[in-house]
Amino acid sequence: MFPSSDTHFMSRAISEAKEALEKDEVPIGCVIVCQGRIIAKGYNLTETLNDVTAHAEMQAITSAASFLGGKYLINCTMYVTMEPCVMCAGALFWSQISKVVIGARDPHRGFIDKGVKLHSKTEIITGVMEEECSALVKDFFKSKR
Amino acid sequence: MFPSSDTHFMSRAISEAKEALEKDEVPIGCVIVCQGRIIAKGYNLTETLNDVTAHAEMQAITSAASFLGGKYLINCTMYVTMEPCVMCAGALFWSQISKVVIGARDPHRGFIDKGVKLHSKTEIITGVMEEECSALVKDFFKSKR
Repeated sequence: MFPSSDTHFMSRAISEAKEALEKDEVPIGCVIVCQGRIIAKGYNLTETLNDVTAHAEMQAITSAASFLGGKYLINCTMYVTMEPCVMCAGALFWSQISKVVIGARDPHRGFIDKGVKLHSKTEIITGVMEEECSALVKDFFKSKR
Repeated sequence: MFPSSDTHFMSRAISEAKEALEKDEVPIGCVIVCQGRIIAKGYNLTETLNDVTAHAEMQAITSAASFLGGKYLINCTMYVTMEPCVMCAGALFWSQISKVVIGARDPHRGFIDKGVKLHSKTEIITGVMEEECSALVKDFFKSKR
């Protein structure tokens, strides 16, 4: 079992993912939390913006740094519905974020099995509300077939 | 020896890197070329924008896709003064860019030795104007010590 704060914030990330779904985007969402408050959120907008870099995580990292007035996300936690890709993991590495809490793993495009490392200071938790996070994406692709 | 078009466009990427230097940023620059024309350019702005994602390549990828009106950079070549990091390589992967021409290798932070792959369609060339590209960054860090 995960702490209730983890399920609380992952639910908020899932709400972000549902915003993506509304726009017919692959439903992935995230929030960044600092001292118990959500300071940034994002959802996938790659199709809407015609931009491969417009992943939920990238937008949230930029937004959190803007909120904090500094580029390092120390003492911040990202809650993200799907395991970040290599690009987003690279951005998380640079951000030195303290913790990343992941809903569903992505064995195909996720960073973990590709051997990409986050910062040595970054704690990684996986499997928070995994089924719900995973079902969102699976149902989306099923509807596209 | 490399074709003169490679040195021509790498010189333009070096000009971008010098723009970064003017702003006291790590001097890395790039341009994206499509059908012999520069359609996007970028230089590192991570300090100015307080944003770890503001690498030269990320900005140029977003800008090129905006110019083309589509997110895939097929038939495009990126000229970049320094080997892209994992984040930028991840973005290049998603973009399906046709070719990446690199000035200097970055054994510490570059994607190649980390085993990160670009798209199977992407050709990679390294070592174009390597000394000039490398000297820019080395001199920058030397001046900081």
